[in-house]
Amino acid sequence: MIPHLVSAENGPVLELEQRILEAQPAIERWFRLEWMEHSPPFYASVDLRNGGFKLAPVDTNLFPGGWNNLSDEMLPLAVQAAMAAIEKICPEAKGLLLIPEKHTRNTFYLENLARLTQIFHQAGLKVHVGTVDEAITEPTSVQLPNGDSLLLEPLVRGKRRLGTKDFDPCTILLNNDLSSGVPASLEGLYEQYVLPPLHAGWTTRRKTTHFKSYDDVVKRFAKLIGVDPWMLNPYFAHCGNIDFHERQGEDCLADAVDTVLGKVRKKYKEYGIHEKPFVAVKADAGTYGMGVMMVHDASEVKDLNRKTRNKMSVVKEGMEVRDVIIQEGIPSIERLQEAVCEPVVYMMDRYVVGGFYRVHAERGPSENLNSPGMHFVPLAFDEQFNVTHPDAKPGTNGPNRFYMYGVIARLALVAASYELERTDPETETI
Amino acid sequence: MIPHLVSAENGPVLELEQRILEAQPAIERWFRLEWMEHSPPFYASVDLRNGGFKLAPVDTNLFPGGWNNLSDEMLPLAVQAAMAAIEKICPEAKGLLLIPEKHTRNTFYLENLARLTQIFHQAGLKVHVGTVDEAITEPTSVQLPNGDSLLLEPLVRGKRRLGTKDFDPCTILLNNDLSSGVPASLEGLYEQYVLPPLHAGWTTRRKTTHFKSYDDVVKRFAKLIGVDPWMLNPYFAHCGNIDFHERQGEDCLADAVDTVLGKVRKKYKEYGIHEKPFVAVKADAGTYGMGVMMVHDASEVKDLNRKTRNKMSVVKEGMEVRDVIIQEGIPSIERLQEAVCEPVVYMMDRYVVGGFYRVHAERGPSENLNSPGMHFVPLAFDEQFNVTHPDAKPGTNGPNRFYMYGVIARLALVAASYELERTDPETETI
Repeated sequence: MIPHLVSAENGPVLELEQRILEAQPAIERWFRLEWMEHSPPFYASVDLRNGGFKLAPVDTNLFPGGWNNLSDEMLPLAVQAAMAAIEKICPEAKGLLLIPEKHTRNTFYLENLARLTQIFHQAGLKVHVGTVDEAITEPTSVQLPNGDSLLLEPLVRGKRRLGTKDFDPCTILLNNDLSSGVPASLEGLYEQYVLPPLHAGWTTRRKTTHFKSYDDVVKRFAKLIGVDPWMLNPYFAHCGNIDFHERQGEDCLADAVDTVLGKVRKKYKEYGIHEKPFVAVKADAGTYGMGVMMVHDASEVKDLNRKTRNKMSVVKEGMEVRDVIIQEGIPSIERLQEAVCEPVVYMMDRYVVGGFYRVHAERGPSENLNSPGMHFVPLAFDEQFNVTHPDAKPGTNGPNRFYMYGVIARLALVAASYELERTDPETETI
Repeated sequence: MIPHLVSAENGPVLELEQRILEAQPAIERWFRLEWMEHSPPFYASVDLRNGGFKLAPVDTNLFPGGWNNLSDEMLPLAVQAAMAAIEKICPEAKGLLLIPEKHTRNTFYLENLARLTQIFHQAGLKVHVGTVDEAITEPTSVQLPNGDSLLLEPLVRGKRRLGTKDFDPCTILLNNDLSSGVPASLEGLYEQYVLPPLHAGWTTRRKTTHFKSYDDVVKRFAKLIGVDPWMLNPYFAHCGNIDFHERQGEDCLADAVDTVLGKVRKKYKEYGIHEKPFVAVKADAGTYGMGVMMVHDASEVKDLNRKTRNKMSVVKEGMEVRDVIIQEGIPSIERLQEAVCEPVVYMMDRYVVGGFYRVHAERGPSENLNSPGMHFVPLAFDEQFNVTHPDAKPGTNGPNRFYMYGVIARLALVAASYELERTDPETETI
């Protein structure tokens, strides 16, 4: 399932594909050397936007849900990657405690948990799902659409360790992005591995920090393959001290929008791109596609109506928005059956293990697709990974395309690794 | 593509499948702990025989050819495993020198080389194929059936390093089993990784040593899952100082055949198995299904006719047979479209990355299938690995079956690791 591409009009990304394929051994070695020095996040998903003239990550999720949206065929790759990850962290591990989000009435999310449980079970771990939801006071079996069930257990916190009743795991895997803060039960667990680390949660994480790291990564990578880093990187700016309700910080926002749009306009001119530049204004700490608006002109952020201000001021779990990222928007040229789509790549440890297209039939190419009404089309395995063909005409070969997606997504993965090192509260700064 | 199984008649292996599935986390942890202490061979393939009442490896190949027989869908798993392997050995590597067998007119074998080249290319290495064939004196392009070509280069040996012209690799990967001895060009390479190590070649390797290691491995594993080790292990014996031409060693052979058949008979009686016991007499150092005969009675090895003696006395590349293994034969119950078949499992590093059925329409269930006329049916990816279903009725679910194959094959892989440690000439013995 390869989305329709208007090949003739979209030279640069096709050239990029060619260049990336030709440089495959050098690229893989480059990643290998990066991972010698830096630990990859335990898992991640990366949203990409393909504008035809550029291909770049726009969001990196370190607590990826949606594993159920990947095709069954990706499972062995995920299992193999999970084996590699576990072996490095806690090879003697018998047990893994999975801590999910609270929304246990969302069957899609429950399916995601079931899929993660299955991956780690097959990788050789006994998996229990322990929830921070205080409404769950005893083991509760919830039904999945396919007829299976999933057991949610209340957490049991000891003095130094966390588990569930009669279950003392080596590793605690968070599938909860800590948007509403770090629960007390997760603090001070020095005897167990907590993955991803607590500072990867949205309590402390900031998108602008991630994309600052990404700037560094992509600069070096672009040099390796000989392209303008902008091809792979959206411009961005940051505004702090925002209060949408109180109309506080509007000037900063308008200036930032203006600055980013100006830089984009210059690049569009340089490359002869006839698109209308826009930016995405997003909560700097937030996810689920909430707190996002698309802006084509600085004036638009000056007189926001109440509805928009309400929308922008609060993200997941009532967390208030104080910082925003103003990120260059990339109009998507990818289509599945006429609907606009964008690729999402899933990784475990350092490995690409699958992905899907996020498709939204009611959105335009310059809109946020991560919104109600979206659906997911798995990147089919045979198309996705199979065999890259260096000689295929650019833009005509699925595996080649997906290899390129995987490379760009892994650049964001390297950036996340840098970011987590830089923001680690336990790293002493000189 | 799951071969037909007469389920009702073949209880024990179905029970085994069930038991292995239930113990999956414990089994994977068991392997993880093994690999903490022991390095897996770089790659391997294992021939299995499924008798319905037992499932066991009968041959472990440390220089596997036939990678071209695996389905395209397995490629990503092999690439991922190759990445993991390379990273451990020589993460900074740019180049890999692949040293093949000499039979460069065998297009199947050339396709195998092309597939291996592709795997390591995608894993991030520049691969050159350098041959020990002295007939190749300059870079020679050979045509593959699919229209691609493969470049064979003469080796260039420096004082301390081996490469090809203008190519100085970090790692040398042997796909040549050294049946005709270790070429001088491979001796004394202390600066480069030579994989598998030279003592894994048939110059020094012995099947009986392998199966002695396997005895140890399987004893512990059988205890873990609570089965009779015999379920997973063929009896065997060894005879040295054999000379088939001179009729030397026939008594030892007859005695050994008698002993093994006696032990098998006892087991058959214990389990109520109504099969006629037989043994495979094989060259203790040899491959390609050469130098193998099936024997149902000790008297058969006493008066071998000239043809059989000729057949048994020489294996690949004219290597003379001096040692033989007398191995319990396992009648195969597996069929593909009426033809007898046996599974062959491929591994890279510690990972199962694919496999196929070796099928021979003209052979019986108690015959050697590795002989002219055989063909290969890849284990289809979606069936092979996809999703194991612990609740599926034993014998009805492809992925469950293939998971079991993979577990038994990995037991042989662990045994090979022990074997290589024990036979390492550079290990000091106390």
